Amino acid sequence: MPPKRLSILGVGLLGGSIGLAAKSALSACEIVGYAHRQQTRDLALQVGAIDRAAESAAEAVDGADLVILCTPVSLFEPLLAEIAPVIAKSAVVTDVGSTKRSVVLAAQRLLGKKSRFVGSHPIAGSEKRGVEFARADLFRNALCILTPTADTDPAALSEIASFWKSLGMRTTQLTPDEHDRILANVSHLPHLLAAVLVAMQDSAAMTLAGKGFLDTTRIASGDGALWRDILLDNRDSILAGIAKLENRLSQVRQWLEDGNGDAIRAFLDTAAQRRDQLLKEKLREINQE
Amino acid sequence: MPPKRLSILGVGLLGGSIGLAAKSALSACEIVGYAHRQQTRDLALQVGAIDRAAESAAEAVDGADLVILCTPVSLFEPLLAEIAPVIAKSAVVTDVGSTKRSVVLAAQRLLGKKSRFVGSHPIAGSEKRGVEFARADLFRNALCILTPTADTDPAALSEIASFWKSLGMRTTQLTPDEHDRILANVSHLPHLLAAVLVAMQDSAAMTLAGKGFLDTTRIASGDGALWRDILLDNRDSILAGIAKLENRLSQVRQWLEDGNGDAIRAFLDTAAQRRDQLLKEKLREINQE
Repeated sequence: MPPKRLSILGVGLLGGSIGLAAKSALSACEIVGYAHRQQTRDLALQVGAIDRAAESAAEAVDGADLVILCTPVSLFEPLLAEIAPVIAKSAVVTDVGSTKRSVVLAAQRLLGKKSRFVGSHPIAGSEKRGVEFARADLFRNALCILTPTADTDPAALSEIASFWKSLGMRTTQLTPDEHDRILANVSHLPHLLAAVLVAMQDSAAMTLAGKGFLDTTRIASGDGALWRDILLDNRDSILAGIAKLENRLSQVRQWLEDGNGDAIRAFLDTAAQRRDQLLKEKLREINQE
Repeated sequence: MPPKRLSILGVGLLGGSIGLAAKSALSACEIVGYAHRQQTRDLALQVGAIDRAAESAAEAVDGADLVILCTPVSLFEPLLAEIAPVIAKSAVVTDVGSTKRSVVLAAQRLLGKKSRFVGSHPIAGSEKRGVEFARADLFRNALCILTPTADTDPAALSEIASFWKSLGMRTTQLTPDEHDRILANVSHLPHLLAAVLVAMQDSAAMTLAGKGFLDTTRIASGDGALWRDILLDNRDSILAGIAKLENRLSQVRQWLEDGNGDAIRAFLDTAAQRRDQLLKEKLREINQE
């Protein structure tokens, strides 16, 4: 059953895009949004991402049957603590955070083991920030990772999955542990490396950067506070990812020192093939509409 | 004075694009192209990148007043050796290689210290390969780095600079040493890292990769043989770049281990600002037309 009242806590790029997408996909659903700043609430109303603005999270979840946490991950725990006493027992709660272990644990502790919380991570976004960049089609054909646990209410899981599908997403499931380990390698570490690549250039080098460098470092333009939270929250997985990267890099360094062109060629060819294959699959997914 | 006969040795993406751009920019210039494979020569003629195909480099440079080496960098030395006995004494010679020290040294040795060779590196290209992807506008508003030495004939330098400008490029000058050091950091190392990032993912992770990962690793789809040559040719600079990167990465690892959110935030914010500034400058350059 689609939600009758959707509560979005944090109306930035993701929260705002959920609002816009839900308004176009769901006919009889009131969308209530909460943002810390008055300016954000006004803007969210103005762009039509929410029907009504609430001045506190507790107010925003009142009577909601679906609640989505869309703030930076470091605010999930205080938000859950604030809404726990007031949400309806039947309400389903999810989030859009880039890390999953901490929010799943916090929800179990604050909402109860048998609560109707399911972690979500829609793989969509932008290096841009703010509801002014929200788009109704941000989630179309994107993948949403759901992270239920053994304690998750199957009905809640099914409702959340249906909700994301109604916005045009595909869904898949991972454990919170698997999610955080994999995303550390495929998202968090690449982000960190993009920032390192920018940081290590001197000014003279930057002026000579080409399109390749701009593409490689695009994600480094993301919001610093948001990414600090993600990196800290998932730091054990990211540290493991850094170790893995350093091992690979050591091997490449050895090949360079030895002048081992065959090994370098094989390494580059394999990477190119895997990346081309990935691009092909992603294009197929996008065009499945 | 613009060339009357332009000889392009290696008619791939870059050589082919030079041919197309020169045909549209220079009225009375015959363009002769050499490629090892018959199929490439036929295709280059077919797409209009060259006026005439030659079956050897020596034949292609006959009577040319401008010769451009557009093969992978590892072929520059044998090509220079082949054309040295037959090119006109007045001919100006350049290349489009991503490394500059080795070709400048080879040209000094094989064409003579007072020869009219000037190293060029047009910062333009694509992860695609082959004359079928050649474009007349590939160089428009891009930057070309020229690497003259104390022995470079000033008239040759000026002719080469004028030629690139006639294709719509801006030019700048670096020593071959500076060029190779800077490009190792801003181009070659990012390429290597993109390949490492792809290589370190397991298959499950790849299917969860988003748009960010695709952008970050775009350059990893480049041609393996071409990049092997670049990496080997510039390996001392790249090894220095790897060491620099590892130092930065160690610092970030320490911040993560210490849970130092302030340092991570400052690091990410600075990287985002520098990258945004770079993007702004690049967009301004592109729109200067």
